[in-house]
Amino acid sequence: MRDVAVVGVGLTKFGERWGDSFREMCVEAGVKAIDDAGMDGDDIQEMFVGNMSGGRFVLQEHIGALIADYSGLATNHIPATRTEAACASGGLAFRQAVNCIASGAQDIVIAAGVEKMTDVSGGETTDALAGAADREWEGMYGVTFPSLYAMMARDYMNRYGMTREELAQVAVKNHYNGARNPIAQYQKEITIDTVLNSTLVADPLRLMDCSPVTDGAAAVILCSLERAKEFTDCPVQVLASTQASDTISLHDRRDISTLDATVAAANRAFDIAKIERKDVDLVEVHDCFTIAEICAIEDIGFCKKGEAGKLTAEGYTALDGKLPVNTSGGLKACGHPVGATGIKQVCEVVSQLRGEAGKRQVDGAEIGMTHNVGGTGATVVTSIFRRV
Amino acid sequence: MRDVAVVGVGLTKFGERWGDSFREMCVEAGVKAIDDAGMDGDDIQEMFVGNMSGGRFVLQEHIGALIADYSGLATNHIPATRTEAACASGGLAFRQAVNCIASGAQDIVIAAGVEKMTDVSGGETTDALAGAADREWEGMYGVTFPSLYAMMARDYMNRYGMTREELAQVAVKNHYNGARNPIAQYQKEITIDTVLNSTLVADPLRLMDCSPVTDGAAAVILCSLERAKEFTDCPVQVLASTQASDTISLHDRRDISTLDATVAAANRAFDIAKIERKDVDLVEVHDCFTIAEICAIEDIGFCKKGEAGKLTAEGYTALDGKLPVNTSGGLKACGHPVGATGIKQVCEVVSQLRGEAGKRQVDGAEIGMTHNVGGTGATVVTSIFRRV
Repeated sequence: MRDVAVVGVGLTKFGERWGDSFREMCVEAGVKAIDDAGMDGDDIQEMFVGNMSGGRFVLQEHIGALIADYSGLATNHIPATRTEAACASGGLAFRQAVNCIASGAQDIVIAAGVEKMTDVSGGETTDALAGAADREWEGMYGVTFPSLYAMMARDYMNRYGMTREELAQVAVKNHYNGARNPIAQYQKEITIDTVLNSTLVADPLRLMDCSPVTDGAAAVILCSLERAKEFTDCPVQVLASTQASDTISLHDRRDISTLDATVAAANRAFDIAKIERKDVDLVEVHDCFTIAEICAIEDIGFCKKGEAGKLTAEGYTALDGKLPVNTSGGLKACGHPVGATGIKQVCEVVSQLRGEAGKRQVDGAEIGMTHNVGGTGATVVTSIFRRV
Repeated sequence: MRDVAVVGVGLTKFGERWGDSFREMCVEAGVKAIDDAGMDGDDIQEMFVGNMSGGRFVLQEHIGALIADYSGLATNHIPATRTEAACASGGLAFRQAVNCIASGAQDIVIAAGVEKMTDVSGGETTDALAGAADREWEGMYGVTFPSLYAMMARDYMNRYGMTREELAQVAVKNHYNGARNPIAQYQKEITIDTVLNSTLVADPLRLMDCSPVTDGAAAVILCSLERAKEFTDCPVQVLASTQASDTISLHDRRDISTLDATVAAANRAFDIAKIERKDVDLVEVHDCFTIAEICAIEDIGFCKKGEAGKLTAEGYTALDGKLPVNTSGGLKACGHPVGATGIKQVCEVVSQLRGEAGKRQVDGAEIGMTHNVGGTGATVVTSIFRRV
C-alpha cells in the first residue's frame, strides 16, 4: 500500500445558507480544494461524496453523479460514489478515497461531504436525523438524538461524578475556538452561565450542549505522498484512516457511555500509524453534543474514563492547552452539516499542520487526528495525520 | 493489485415481501452467501451495502451499521459502508468490495444490496425514485422515470426504425427466463400481445415494458483468488469492475439514447479484462425498461447502434441464442429492488458460470458480464467474470 497525502482543502461558510443549494455548496468546496492544490479539475480521477440524507432534506439521491456533473467532472466519466453512515458519511468518503490512492487504483482523488438541512421544517429535520438511529427499536418509540445523548450524559454523570459545569465547559471552549474560525456558524464566545441558562432540550442537555442544524460542504484532494510535492510545499501525510461499527441501538451496548467503535477504530489507527497518544498535537472529535466530546477524549485513549470533564475544566483541551480539542469550534460552534463534518475535520487538521489556521493556530503542530461518529456510535472513523 | 474471486452468493425471493423487513431480507441474503461460501460470519472483515433510498422507503439511514449489527458482525466492529448511486447502488458496493480485496486491505469482504419498496404508497415510491434524476431540473417539473425512458425510446425508434414489436420481445424474452428462476418476482411467460395490450404508462412504454416495484436483497462474498479454493471448488474470478459517471439530467446528454457512461465503463472493463466482446457467454444488463436493454446491448459494444431490436426479435439474446441476455429474467421479470439489483446480477452470473442455474443454465458458460445503471445513465458499473 502506498503512502497517501492531502494536498488541497476547501470549505464553504457553515450556517443557514438560505440562498445556496445543495449542489452549489458542494461544488464551491470542491473548486476551493482544487484551487488550493493548484491543479485542474481534469486531474481528478475519482470522487467520493459523503452525504447522510439528501433523500429527505432535498429529495435528491444519486449524489455522487450529481456532484460529478455539476462540478464538470462527469465529462471525463470519472467514478463518483456516495457513501453514507449518518453523521460519519464524510469520514467514510475520506477513508474510501485514502484506500483508493493507497491501493494504487487511482493517483488523484477528491473526497467531499455535504448536507443542506434548512430546506425542510424542524420536525422533518429531527425525524430525518432519527434515521441515524434504529428506526424500528428507537425512532418508532419517539426517541430523538438529543434524548439518546441525554441518556448517555445522565449515565456518565452518575457513574463518574462529572459536574454540569464541567460539561458546559466543552461548549464554552468550542465557542471560543469558533469565534476564531471565519467559516464557523457561531463566531461568538459564551460563558458557563450561557449554557446553564439555555433552554432544556433533554435533561441534562440544554440548547447550548447541542450542535446546530447547518448547511455546508467540505472537500479534500488526496494523492500519493510521492507526487504530493507537485501540488503543495506542505503536504500532510495520512498515517492511518480506520473505521469500526457497533450496534445501531444504544440499548444493545454493553456500556452506553463508552463508544466501543471509537475504542476499536482508534486502537487500529494508532497501531497502523505507529505513534503514541502523547504524540498527537491536536484532535478534532465528534462533539454533536457536549457529552460526546467527553466520551471521545476518553474512548480514543487520551485519558482514563471519568477524567475528561475535569481535564476540560482545567483547560487541558483548550486552544493553548496540552491537547487542543476541536480548534475549528467543533460541531458545536463551527456547525454540523452532517455529511460534511467528517471532511471538515480533515480540512481543519490539515490547515493546522500547515500552520494556516490563523487566530486559532496551535503552535508547532506536527501530528493531528480526526474522529467522526455516526449515530450514537454505530459507526466511527478515525484518521491520523502528520506534517511532512 | 491482487486477483479477486467470488466464493459465495445469496439471494432472497424477490417480490412483494409484506411480512419481511428491510433488515431481515438483507441478513437473509448475507447468511445464504456465507453458508454458500462454507465460512463463518467471523471470517468477514469488511462490509459494503448498496441501498438507494432507505431514508424515503423505510425512514432508515445508517444502513451499513444497521446490517452489520443485525447480522451479528458489529460485535467484531468491522467497517460497514453504505454506497448509493440510485439503481446502481449495488454495483458500487460490489466494486468497492472488489477494490478492497484487490488492494490487499482486507482478505474476505461481503457486498450486499437491499431495497424494501412496498412499505410506502405508490406515489411516494415514484417520487422517491425520481430522486435518481435531477430533482431541480427534472423531478420538480413532474418528470418520472417511465417518462424519461419513454423519451429515450421515442428518440431511438425514430432514429433507428425499431418496431414496437421488436421492443416488446425484450419483455417476452425476460419473462421466459424469469419463469425458469425460482426467486423471480414474475415466473410467468408472456407474449408480444401481452405487452402491446398492457396499459400505456408513458408513450411508447406500456406496463409490460417497465420493471416492477420489488422488495429483495442479494449478497456476495469476495476473497483473493489465491485463497478462493479454501471456500469453493468453483471460484469465479472478477476480471474487471469499472464505474463511470455522466450528466444526471437526460437533457444535458449529447445523445439521449446512447449511454456514454455505459460506453466508458464497458471500454475500461474490456481493456482491464483483456478479452473481446465475442468472448462473453452471457450478460445481465440493466433493463429497468425494455428500451434500456436495447441501448445496453449496443452501448456495451455487442452490436452496432440500431441493431439490438432486430437481434432480439431474431432470438440472438434468448436463453438458447448466441448471447443470452438477462438469464435471471432481468429487472423486468426477476424484479428490481433498486439497491439489490447490481448484486443480484453478480449472483446470477456466478450461478451460471458455476453451472448451477437449473432450468435457465447456459451450456458451457465460461465468461459472464454485469451492467448496472443508476438513473438514466449518470452512473454505470460493469463487471466481467470468468470461471476458474
